[in-house]
Order: sequence, then C-alpha cells, then structure tokens
Amino acid sequence: MPELQDRFLRACRRQPVDRTPIWIMRQAGRYQPEYRELRRRHTMMECCTTPELAAEVTLMPLRRFELDAAILFSDLTVPFTPMGAPFVLKESVGPVIEQPVRSAADVERLRLIEPEEDLPFTLEAIRLLRRELTVPLIGFTGAPFTWAAYLVEGGGSRDFRHTRAFIYSQPEAWDRLMALLAENVLRYLTAQAAAGAQALQLFDSWVGILPPSVYRRQVQPHMSRLFEGLKALDVPVIHFGTGTGSLLEDMRDAGGDVIGVDWRMDLSEARRRLGDGVAVQGNLDPTVLLAPPDVLEREALRVLAEAGSAPGHIFNLGHGILPETPLDNVARLVDTVHGA
Amino acid sequence: MPELQDRFLRACRRQPVDRTPIWIMRQAGRYQPEYRELRRRHTMMECCTTPELAAEVTLMPLRRFELDAAILFSDLTVPFTPMGAPFVLKESVGPVIEQPVRSAADVERLRLIEPEEDLPFTLEAIRLLRRELTVPLIGFTGAPFTWAAYLVEGGGSRDFRHTRAFIYSQPEAWDRLMALLAENVLRYLTAQAAAGAQALQLFDSWVGILPPSVYRRQVQPHMSRLFEGLKALDVPVIHFGTGTGSLLEDMRDAGGDVIGVDWRMDLSEARRRLGDGVAVQGNLDPTVLLAPPDVLEREALRVLAEAGSAPGHIFNLGHGILPETPLDNVARLVDTVHGA
Repeated sequence: MPELQDRFLRACRRQPVDRTPIWIMRQAGRYQPEYRELRRRHTMMECCTTPELAAEVTLMPLRRFELDAAILFSDLTVPFTPMGAPFVLKESVGPVIEQPVRSAADVERLRLIEPEEDLPFTLEAIRLLRRELTVPLIGFTGAPFTWAAYLVEGGGSRDFRHTRAFIYSQPEAWDRLMALLAENVLRYLTAQAAAGAQALQLFDSWVGILPPSVYRRQVQPHMSRLFEGLKALDVPVIHFGTGTGSLLEDMRDAGGDVIGVDWRMDLSEARRRLGDGVAVQGNLDPTVLLAPPDVLEREALRVLAEAGSAPGHIFNLGHGILPETPLDNVARLVDTVHGA
Repeated sequence: MPELQDRFLRACRRQPVDRTPIWIMRQAGRYQPEYRELRRRHTMMECCTTPELAAEVTLMPLRRFELDAAILFSDLTVPFTPMGAPFVLKESVGPVIEQPVRSAADVERLRLIEPEEDLPFTLEAIRLLRRELTVPLIGFTGAPFTWAAYLVEGGGSRDFRHTRAFIYSQPEAWDRLMALLAENVLRYLTAQAAAGAQALQLFDSWVGILPPSVYRRQVQPHMSRLFEGLKALDVPVIHFGTGTGSLLEDMRDAGGDVIGVDWRMDLSEARRRLGDGVAVQGNLDPTVLLAPPDVLEREALRVLAEAGSAPGHIFNLGHGILPETPLDNVARLVDTVHGA
C-alpha cells in the first residue's frame, strides 16, 4: 500500500499538524466536469453500486486538488433497499421511498443488513481505493435519525413534520425503528472499517430539526449505544449535523471524536461549547465558493481564526459543495487553508 | 371600543399576569373548516386585500378558542407588489416572485411604499377589527432579511443559497436592498400602529439560515436602526425567527420587547441566554398538536415549566399551526395553558 499522508487523521486525534487538513463534503460531485461527463453514461445508483465506478469517482477530486482525505463515493440511502425500504433517487429531488414508514407495522417490515452480502460493492470499492490512495479514506453512512427521517417522510423535507409527529404519536415504534437503524449503522460502518476505511463520518444531516428535549429522549440513547459499539473499530468517527446550534453539547455527549458543524455557528463558539475533548470539523458557508476571490480568502481565514490554534480542526464546508461552484475557487480554498 | 383583556400586552411588557397568555401563529388558517370554506370562494390575495374578508378571517379562531390576542390576517408578501416586485402566491408552494432580485440594478427597481395609498386594505381591516375585538390585535410584517430572502430567491427555499451568495458577492447592493426594505417595514408597521394595531410582530422567519458573522455585519445594523424607529410607536414588538439557536443574543441586541423562538431550542436555555430584559414567545413544536391528548398536555406543560415563573412568557407554537391539526387539540392546548 502507498505511504499515507496523515494530517487529517492526526487532526481527528487532536495531535499537532503542519497545516490544517481540508476535505470537502461532496468533493466528488457535479461541480466537476469529469463527474458530469461520467454521470451522462451512468446513473447515481450505478456509480454507487459498481466498485470500479465508485472508486473512480472518489478519486476525481484528488486528481485536481491537494485534499487531505478522500471520502468514499456513495449515498446515504444506499442501504435502504437491503433494509427492506426500496426507493428511487430522483435528480435534484433526492430519495423517494416507495412505502414510507408510518406505523409500527411498517417498522416491523424492516430488517437487519448483512453488509458483506447486501452491500459488497461498497466494501469492494473501499478495498480498491486503499490500493491507490495516499490520503486517508473516510467511510460514511447516514445516522439513525437521518435515515429514519427519510424513511418516515418518504424522502427529503423542509421541516420533517411527519417524522416529528411520528416520534410524539408512536414513541415505542420510533424507538424500535431507531434501535434497528442503529444496529444497521453499526454493522455497515464495522464492515467499512474492516474493508479499510480509516475514518468514518456519521451524517446526522437533519437532526437539527428536533427540539433538544426530543433529541435527548429519543435519539441520544440510540446514538450513545452506537458510538459505544464503534469504539471497538479504533478509527476516528466524525459526528456531523446541520442546524445543530441548540444540540451541540448533546451531540458531543452522544459520541464521536470529531463534531462536524454547519455554517450557522461561529466555530469559536462551537469550540468553546464543545471543550477540548473533541476535534471540530467545518464550517465555511458553501455559498462563499461562489463569491469573488478576496471574499473567499477572507471568509476561509475567518474560519481558521475562529478555529483557533489548539490542535483538532479539520477544515470543511458547513455542508455539501454546490454544483455551480467554479473549480478555480476550490483550488483557491485549498491553497488558502494550506497556506495560512 | 370594547373593553380590552390585556393579559397578552402585560406579558409583552413583563408584567405579572393571572394566566400565561396564548395565541397561535397562523391561528386563522386551513385547519379550520370555516376558513377552508371561505377559501373555496376567495383566493388568499382576495382575503388579504379585502378589509371585510381579512377582518372576518382574523376573527374566526377567536370565535372558537379563548385566545389572548388576534393577529391580522395577511401575508408577509403583500407589500411586494407596491414595492415593485410583483408575485403570485401558489397554493402549497408560497410566493413566486416574477423577477427575482439578483443584481444592483434589480435593487434600484424597488421603491419605497406609502402604506395609506399602497396598502389601504390592511389598515382598514385593522380599523374594522378594533371595533370588534376584546383582545389585543397584533399587526405584522416580514422582517427585512426575510423579505430580501424571498425577493432574491424568487420564492421560498430550503437553504436560501442565492441569498447567501448575493450577500457575499454583492455586499453593497445587499446593504442598499436591506436599507430600503427596513424603511418599508418601518413605514408599514408605523401605519399599522396608527390604524390601531396594539402590538407588532416582525417575522424574520428565515434568518436562521445565516452564519452569525453575516448576521452581525449585514443584517443586525439594519435591524437596530429599524427597532430604533419602531420605539416611537410605543407598542410592544415581537422579534421572531426560526432556527435561531446561534443568533439569539444577536437578535436580542438588534431589538424587540419579545423574542420569539421556534421549537428547536429549550425555552429555559433561551431565557437564560436572553436575560431578563426581554419577554419570550414560544415554543411548542407544531407537530405536537397531531399527537394524542396526554402527549399534547405533557409537552405544553413542559414548555410552561421551561418558561419558568418570571413574568414575560407568551405561549405560542414554534412556527405556524399545521393544516392537518384537529380542532379539538387546539382547544385542549388553550385549556392546558390557561389551566396550568
């Protein structure tokens, strides 16, 4: 295997680094012409379920930019079909679940996954990538709440109102759903680590929609158990959510070596609230990459300044890079972060 | 004029009250059969621009429930057309602006309003209502940022990415836009207060999408000037936003007698952070009104307990009531709050 540049892993472990590491959520994506070209010939799901394609797409951004980590190309929803919740991915809409989970009986229909049998393409893509990569490979999955939110809602949503109503109206069915999803997350991430993923990111993308009291009662216990299980893997785990200004301490208490925050928070305030027992990842507003160079540099330096000089900061956007982002701005961002 | 039950106004001023006052965002709306019936005969815009209809719809929820305040029936977007930004309201989509504001030239197209000439129906509805009402009447408008977000985006949005990109890329044009919108808000609210509105709510519904640094630099100065202007009206002003977990102190510093918060925050934490110089409004999750009675009562009592015993709490939902809400649950909520 090629020698590893370990800046990213060192920052996850809050060890000193020569430069702040940077990777970008959705760094393999539509802002790249070579990705758009590939997607004219292959669907999103083909790219996720064909190891060679998934590996090729994963590598695309690394050929262009000096990123400090790769993230496996896949989609949060890929495990839904083997779980018993078939769906389609609609372009610019997202997943549409055939039968949303709205009752206790719907929860009973779902099943535990066997990653080596159900998702072999993901694990094979990881094995292929490890032979090529000189930076660490991040595996990932949706977190149980975010999976549940898609399953209950039947897809994406602005306010995930059906999900919240489900929690209030059917708390026992909700807890069974979360327990099953947490077990599936554990199995999936365990398999990814075994295949060679050197870090893992849990995307609890939509958890910020919840009242903190509901998070503590009906999400956090499942997350705590999950993070307990993940400890045995001995790889850093990034715990990411958006809109989590009122949940930050509760997310940290649930677990994770790194807490990922979106742009709706001062990173200095996030570090103050989180304390020095975890690293942080974030949090440039993705729309800054559509701004003129001086603004982009100013805002990137602001994020670095807010992160402060203590070890344990991984530079990233606050959420996925936008498809309309100019390539030059990505290069400029990486240079700014590495040059600071 | 009829004698006024002033529990709501006393709470706005942080004076002791016999019971916690309650009103409900979108309390005149689709969850009521009489509203749906009226809307089969009249469009939303007809209801907003015909004083008798606006007054009639405003009164509907007060005939059913013992609410402690009325809120004028209107829409945040009504002043867009006289401002020079015509739009249509699409059912279950929201406003669609004919020509989104995307450049400095687009900003120059917009103009100052003269409420008595441009929006006489709103002011006449307020005058009609004051003759009928025995509870205070709340006037309202969108806040400058939320207006700007609709205008730039061309409508609603999940992440208001064009708005954020506009701020970063065209900061001077943005400041001109905000200055004009803030002046229009001031004119509109001044006219509403002169017509008889006894309190005012500024809906900065989408402000929670911003990084705090951007709020402080490019929204807060405009809000501070606006609140300075509103002081002369001598009516309480409610400053409301959603997803404001990272903006709460900055919103308070901008101004307002009452800070309205959505369900994504513990109200106890909100009061702790806001201090005792302002009242708070909120913050039951609207989806709780879809849950069984025992859950509804438990959650309403939780909100009351979190608000604590210090004066200055107005009970409300964290955002608008959902169309699918059963009428019985609204009655139960009002009883629970008043009986606690």
